[in-house]
Amino acid sequence: MDVVGTPRNRVEGVDKVTGAAKYAGDLDIPGTLEARVLRSTHAHARLRSIDVSAALAVPGVEAVLTREDLRDMDPYYGNCLRDRPIVAMERVRHVGEPVAAVAAHGALAAEEAVARIEVEYEELPSVTSLDEALADGAPVLHERAAGSGDFHDVNLSDAREHPNICHHEHIELGDADRGFAQSDEVFEDVFLFPMVCHYSMEPHTTTALVQGRQVTLWSASAHPFLIRSELAKLFGLSMTDVQVVVPYVGGAFGGKSYLKIEPLVVALARKTPGQPVRLQHSVTESMLTARRHSARCHIKTGVKRDGTILAREVKMYLDTGAYADNGPRVVARAVLRVHGAYRCANFRSDSYGIYTNSVPAGSMRSIGGPQSIWPVEAQMDRIAEALGLDPLQYRLRHLLGRDEAIRPNSRGVDGDLREGLNRVAEMVRQAGAPAAGSGTGFAVGITDSEANPVSTAIVRLLNDGDVVVMAGSTEVGQGARTVLSQIVAEELCVPFERVMLRGTDTHTTPFDRSTGASRSTTVMGTAVKFAAADVHRQVKAIAAAQFGVDPERVVLKAGAAWCGEARRDFSEVVSGYFGMPGGELIGRGYVRAGGGISPILPIFWEVGIGGAVVAVDRDTGELAVERYTSVADVGRAINPRQAEGQDEGAAVMAMGHTLFESLVYADGQPLNPNLVDYRVPGFRDIPRTFESCLLENGDGPGPYGAKGMGEGGIIPVAPAICNALAQATGVRIHELPLTPERVWRALRKTNGETA
Amino acid sequence: MDVVGTPRNRVEGVDKVTGAAKYAGDLDIPGTLEARVLRSTHAHARLRSIDVSAALAVPGVEAVLTREDLRDMDPYYGNCLRDRPIVAMERVRHVGEPVAAVAAHGALAAEEAVARIEVEYEELPSVTSLDEALADGAPVLHERAAGSGDFHDVNLSDAREHPNICHHEHIELGDADRGFAQSDEVFEDVFLFPMVCHYSMEPHTTTALVQGRQVTLWSASAHPFLIRSELAKLFGLSMTDVQVVVPYVGGAFGGKSYLKIEPLVVALARKTPGQPVRLQHSVTESMLTARRHSARCHIKTGVKRDGTILAREVKMYLDTGAYADNGPRVVARAVLRVHGAYRCANFRSDSYGIYTNSVPAGSMRSIGGPQSIWPVEAQMDRIAEALGLDPLQYRLRHLLGRDEAIRPNSRGVDGDLREGLNRVAEMVRQAGAPAAGSGTGFAVGITDSEANPVSTAIVRLLNDGDVVVMAGSTEVGQGARTVLSQIVAEELCVPFERVMLRGTDTHTTPFDRSTGASRSTTVMGTAVKFAAADVHRQVKAIAAAQFGVDPERVVLKAGAAWCGEARRDFSEVVSGYFGMPGGELIGRGYVRAGGGISPILPIFWEVGIGGAVVAVDRDTGELAVERYTSVADVGRAINPRQAEGQDEGAAVMAMGHTLFESLVYADGQPLNPNLVDYRVPGFRDIPRTFESCLLENGDGPGPYGAKGMGEGGIIPVAPAICNALAQATGVRIHELPLTPERVWRALRKTNGETA
Repeated sequence: MDVVGTPRNRVEGVDKVTGAAKYAGDLDIPGTLEARVLRSTHAHARLRSIDVSAALAVPGVEAVLTREDLRDMDPYYGNCLRDRPIVAMERVRHVGEPVAAVAAHGALAAEEAVARIEVEYEELPSVTSLDEALADGAPVLHERAAGSGDFHDVNLSDAREHPNICHHEHIELGDADRGFAQSDEVFEDVFLFPMVCHYSMEPHTTTALVQGRQVTLWSASAHPFLIRSELAKLFGLSMTDVQVVVPYVGGAFGGKSYLKIEPLVVALARKTPGQPVRLQHSVTESMLTARRHSARCHIKTGVKRDGTILAREVKMYLDTGAYADNGPRVVARAVLRVHGAYRCANFRSDSYGIYTNSVPAGSMRSIGGPQSIWPVEAQMDRIAEALGLDPLQYRLRHLLGRDEAIRPNSRGVDGDLREGLNRVAEMVRQAGAPAAGSGTGFAVGITDSEANPVSTAIVRLLNDGDVVVMAGSTEVGQGARTVLSQIVAEELCVPFERVMLRGTDTHTTPFDRSTGASRSTTVMGTAVKFAAADVHRQVKAIAAAQFGVDPERVVLKAGAAWCGEARRDFSEVVSGYFGMPGGELIGRGYVRAGGGISPILPIFWEVGIGGAVVAVDRDTGELAVERYTSVADVGRAINPRQAEGQDEGAAVMAMGHTLFESLVYADGQPLNPNLVDYRVPGFRDIPRTFESCLLENGDGPGPYGAKGMGEGGIIPVAPAICNALAQATGVRIHELPLTPERVWRALRKTNGETA
Repeated sequence: MDVVGTPRNRVEGVDKVTGAAKYAGDLDIPGTLEARVLRSTHAHARLRSIDVSAALAVPGVEAVLTREDLRDMDPYYGNCLRDRPIVAMERVRHVGEPVAAVAAHGALAAEEAVARIEVEYEELPSVTSLDEALADGAPVLHERAAGSGDFHDVNLSDAREHPNICHHEHIELGDADRGFAQSDEVFEDVFLFPMVCHYSMEPHTTTALVQGRQVTLWSASAHPFLIRSELAKLFGLSMTDVQVVVPYVGGAFGGKSYLKIEPLVVALARKTPGQPVRLQHSVTESMLTARRHSARCHIKTGVKRDGTILAREVKMYLDTGAYADNGPRVVARAVLRVHGAYRCANFRSDSYGIYTNSVPAGSMRSIGGPQSIWPVEAQMDRIAEALGLDPLQYRLRHLLGRDEAIRPNSRGVDGDLREGLNRVAEMVRQAGAPAAGSGTGFAVGITDSEANPVSTAIVRLLNDGDVVVMAGSTEVGQGARTVLSQIVAEELCVPFERVMLRGTDTHTTPFDRSTGASRSTTVMGTAVKFAAADVHRQVKAIAAAQFGVDPERVVLKAGAAWCGEARRDFSEVVSGYFGMPGGELIGRGYVRAGGGISPILPIFWEVGIGGAVVAVDRDTGELAVERYTSVADVGRAINPRQAEGQDEGAAVMAMGHTLFESLVYADGQPLNPNLVDYRVPGFRDIPRTFESCLLENGDGPGPYGAKGMGEGGIIPVAPAICNALAQATGVRIHELPLTPERVWRALRKTNGETA
């Protein structure tokens, strides 16, 4: 292969490093009004009244949006449950929830107006922890009382055990009870995972322009086609009435999935027809818009004395915040992901999404993955220790084999977990013996991809040999444009430099389900491959007719068709076909379950394997990750340079929730939604020795054997570090992040001291 | 048929009447610099020096473009001959030619700077008439001296009889000499056709933005794809480096064909990278940029005593101005179009394009048509009169029959000329006897379409049943979007309102050769029909699989697939296929000679038949067109409302060159390039009784039997009116326009008076 498998600089690299790349907020759309949002300062309150008269009087203010503007429509949306209003209707349910929004000439006027909106709240009791939310008599976030108009049941079971359970998933494989009965030892642990924020460098930004029925959005989004269809539904439009343009996106990580600020911006822009309205969040506002689910995981595992796992039972409570967002899907992933990467025939798992009065939680890089793999892998070490087994060997012995399925009628593991773990161990070993007092830990995670199998693409070969790819994967920094361009170049046999792939515009770009769930390389990659192959076939047939031979005698190579020694550039093939220096060949690619992608789910398993060497400062409790090694089982790295970057990025992101990230609530108030008090990983948090290794066995369902990656790298970090900490100190901490204070207290407790 | 053949309001009608429609000049592209052009005040001069230092000193000026900026490239362009520099290099060749251009913050600064550019000219003798240009020893506009670098021979014969002949075409059919020898009577006439301007309501407007290698243009153009490829060639770029966006265009009529101001604007924008540069012509500037060819036509016809035409010989001199532009193609059309619509086996025709020091002439509605049909049809009446024949009956007897070809291996006439002329005569008769002193005249013209057969299109069926058409026909006011949408709606069996077709953007819209030559309905119409049929087939196959039947049992109707009484909306078909409320079906359509369109040229004949009743004020010479009837033989009117509008528009446009339009030169200076001194037809020039009738015999090569129309209506107007004038007064005038002064003088002369 000429292009696939070779390290390439990203196609938009120069644009990005020179600052020429335009993000949604960089677009200078003439006449744009700036929007600012009035947000709830209460965790839970009834809205008695909203007085916007003073706000409207501020010079430069064009419109103020409140619930009053939504009385003629159903203002609730949500991709799983339609429980979230465009702006607060009867109640606010978390601090930061939009209550009103202002569009004005300039940010100052908008801010001034927001400050002058008078809201009268009637405070209600709130719940900001799982315990509070699930207590008897807890305040209920979403009633189902008839006629409240405040909740739209979509897929919620009527048999909720508690009214604050937003979603519940249950899996039962084999007979867990019998498994436990046959076990020699049973281990029970509870693990706590913190609330963490996505922190994309680009906060949520959307500009909307409403002209008659036409709605145009320029939005930092990973789901433009879903935005199109959902906005069309919400506002009673047709799909071609809604145009969603996505330029470069400055990081998404799930935080820009589905609908986020778009409904609010469109509702506001409807009040200023012909005048675009832009809402650019501050970092704090984005932190108050979406987050990862914090979790409490009860995990109970029964084993034989040799360590064979006979049974596992899990109860995972995921705090989904004030609105469901993508919570139900996170719950649906977590319930299986917590099975772990080991043979365990008897498995009972319940996952719950719980409403609390906090920022809504939704998708975030490997949804439900870190919350699931951490308990499994931390407990694995505890079991090994209890049984006197070497944790590495224990893992190797019980890992799922290639193609081994966790449950019937599902795809088996399409990677080589043993090879991956051995590779990690080997790399850790090669780096030399750890310093005295440090510990080594390993972890393996697999996650059933949530990737939806629907993508379409168009590839066009112009008459000068340039190639245009129309594919709706948004470039969120992951390198999608480069990878998709490589696949097209490979399949159509053109030089990589001749392939152009631009941003998404739902008016011209064909449908793609979404950018997320590590699906772009696998699913959209297959779609562009099909579309390129469609053009390839046409070129071959046309060139064959021009050469006067059968198509099978024609070979395409480096932008030309060859028949023996005879050669015709693609430009000659196309221009010859059309009889002028013009025309173009158009190929299409459709991918759907059973068409290009196996209908057996998951589409692929994402694998993350890590090894950590950790040193601890026993005086301060500060951890130093001396070494971190990640192995990503990618099937085939279309672009090894980018694949490594993705894997490293995932591992570094995980350093955050492992070591210091946590959005903290007290009395319903978020204490640190800002970059001073909430720290995200930076360069100094990168381990001194930091390696990523790509495992390429061509066993993925995507192009050339590729599978999704870039999320898997996040899952083994916390357990590997925890396990290393335990090896170094004997201390097992069941709550993340491993802040110095928490480690210091644990060390003191273990040593019998009082904190 | 449900949609095709029904009168529909144009899809962009509301946008246009409400002012929401954006033309190139309406686009508010942030940071745009205004451009102004310094134009030659000399008809012919050598450029001694250009001093821009004072211009550069004007505050707000960002760049001044002169020939010095083009020294490192080949600055000549032209679609037939590359004889035109981006800005004047060594010489200027007509008044109005760009010498330099300024880009500045605001028009005032640009104008101030233009005024401060010092140009030293060395005046050269000039030629602004055919006689001057063709005189022995006339100043030569384009030398071929080696090393001058001033002319690039592309298809010009070396055997030019005179160095100012830009292009020469010759046709010889049968034996004209023998024909004349066998003739009883020979008629010789010379007819003069004036210089006329396109006068689109929107003058030429282009904004260009250069960023690195990327060039983006927003241009009022009918040929965006040609602009892309030509600019790529000119500036050494790849096709995907050049993006041409065409919003609505406010009239084109050929004046926005090929390259016009685009090279200059791009060359200027290259000096201000990152800052867009907009050039918006004034009406005067557009009048000095392109025009229709004035012509002198020597026509000699030999007939038998019964009127049978035995031979015709024509020498036509077309004044192409200072640069070739599309002149050679105009010459190539005129040489055959002057054959006329009658049987004439012996035909010798020479057409010449002549360089003069005047505005370059190129395409204009029915290229070479009015200049050709007027002499033929005016002479026909003179012959009939001389032979004592009724002009109408004389015509009917000798008109070419259906499928009769003028020359071998060419397409025969694909219309019914007799039916058309009878229809006109019938309509004129039904309107009642003309008033005393008025006269009636008829004319028939056929023109071999210049339409190029290459178009491609994409049609996409979204999962809610909306349809997106991606077709590069620019909406220049002719109604292309509506007609193409109708064809797609018909072919794909969806309601017309569900079809969306937007402006052209060469990055996303597939290739179309051009908008012009009446080709969009026929050629692009076929491409979108193919693309829609491609989707139709897919829908049928998918629905059949969903119904569990063979595809032939499935019928599509009104946005749904039917199998007997069972029905599935397209939204269900598409969503069902993709297994989610998403996905889309993509169809492509290619048209090329031999693929969708017959390789026999012309692609179709365009027919224009008219009848006029004219009254004359004998005191003032003023003509009043009491009645005008036009018959357009359209094959099939996809949208009768628009077809009538097109035909009427063509006839009204022709009132201009017939009655009052003429760009007048004296001493190399244009005397009236403005809307005060150069009058274009307005509502008061529309005849009192004005009728258009569409002949629909389904005999065109386009969709549903359609053929090109909208140009044919312009050709019979001048001869019909001249013939009516002759019938009313006995005066035959051989020079257009029929200004009151010219008519008054002719009347006096005929009456033996001296003017």
